[in-house]
Amino acid sequence: MIAPPPRPPVGSSSDAPKPLRADARRNRTRILDAAEAVFSEGGAAASTEEVANRAGVAIGTVFRHFPTKTDLLAAIMKELLRRLTDDVRTLDNDGDAATGLFTFFARMVAESAAKRTVVQLLADAGVGVDLGDSVRALQEAVGALLARAQRADVVRADVRLDEVMALLVSTCQGALHAGWDADLQRRTLAVVFAGLRPAPEGTASRR
Amino acid sequence: MIAPPPRPPVGSSSDAPKPLRADARRNRTRILDAAEAVFSEGGAAASTEEVANRAGVAIGTVFRHFPTKTDLLAAIMKELLRRLTDDVRTLDNDGDAATGLFTFFARMVAESAAKRTVVQLLADAGVGVDLGDSVRALQEAVGALLARAQRADVVRADVRLDEVMALLVSTCQGALHAGWDADLQRRTLAVVFAGLRPAPEGTASRR
Repeated sequence: MIAPPPRPPVGSSSDAPKPLRADARRNRTRILDAAEAVFSEGGAAASTEEVANRAGVAIGTVFRHFPTKTDLLAAIMKELLRRLTDDVRTLDNDGDAATGLFTFFARMVAESAAKRTVVQLLADAGVGVDLGDSVRALQEAVGALLARAQRADVVRADVRLDEVMALLVSTCQGALHAGWDADLQRRTLAVVFAGLRPAPEGTASRR
Repeated sequence: MIAPPPRPPVGSSSDAPKPLRADARRNRTRILDAAEAVFSEGGAAASTEEVANRAGVAIGTVFRHFPTKTDLLAAIMKELLRRLTDDVRTLDNDGDAATGLFTFFARMVAESAAKRTVVQLLADAGVGVDLGDSVRALQEAVGALLARAQRADVVRADVRLDEVMALLVSTCQGALHAGWDADLQRRTLAVVFAGLRPAPEGTASRR
């Protein structure tokens, strides 16, 4: 999932006066890509020095873009949430109403199980980052997917967004911590998806 | 590899392991109770000094019973798992087959949401404690409860223990991290429980 960082630009001489704004933007992107890889592997405890090494920039360059580690973590998480939100919107626009929500759910759990995301960072309450706007954008996108699934009658009408998000975060955390294999992912999600589907006539009261 | 020293002759009373005296047993229990409270509040990072203070014993007494913090954490977690296992067995022996599994599930999630347990410690992979036997005992007890629910036809016959445990651990972690209120617990578990119930005739293929 994580793209390799772009190659460093060739031919930038060390005595160049001030980095161009385009260089600064490239550095920022390179630092963020490196940081996502480093923190995905080492958790939030990984050091800023490792990020600078991986990005191939001086530590001072990292600090110029991100004065504290929290700033860096916040930027990674916002970028991750933005990509997820884009994914969800694409599914909502292009995908099958009957499968979009379940496809997104299964993809998130699979990525968590493979520890290919920085979901662990998101779960780490100690980071103290305000992700309010980014989280709200993701929730709204998932909410649109849920509403579509409900209009297509593949999800029960009385299911609300917050229990869907609670189940999504829970199963991602479970898959991440215990490294669920594909079969366990499938069987666990089968229970959740069966629970989201409308109850046939006459059985609704069993809920 | 260095050979261990020869074992002392058996039967020499001074070398035999001494049973804990009544006051030592009391101290051990007091330390464990204090440690569970301290680590529940402060996480695994809380100090052994705090445990000694809370228990009202000298720090040396804590170290005599539990030479390392890992020994102390292992003892707490084994005790917690033993109590949970007892709870499950009581539900299995005395409870209603149709509700036992769901009752246990909801109780665990409620305790996690209230952060009244040391579930966080169990989830902390960094502790490095071997809890194999204690976890297996709990899983067996939950397995008995599941089998009973399946015989009573309140849980689908093709549901297996490992997805039930995966859902249990996931929802407990979710409730713990996000502090689900009672309403969110109820709605989230309603989805899981609906997913565990048998599909009515003719709808099984929708799974």
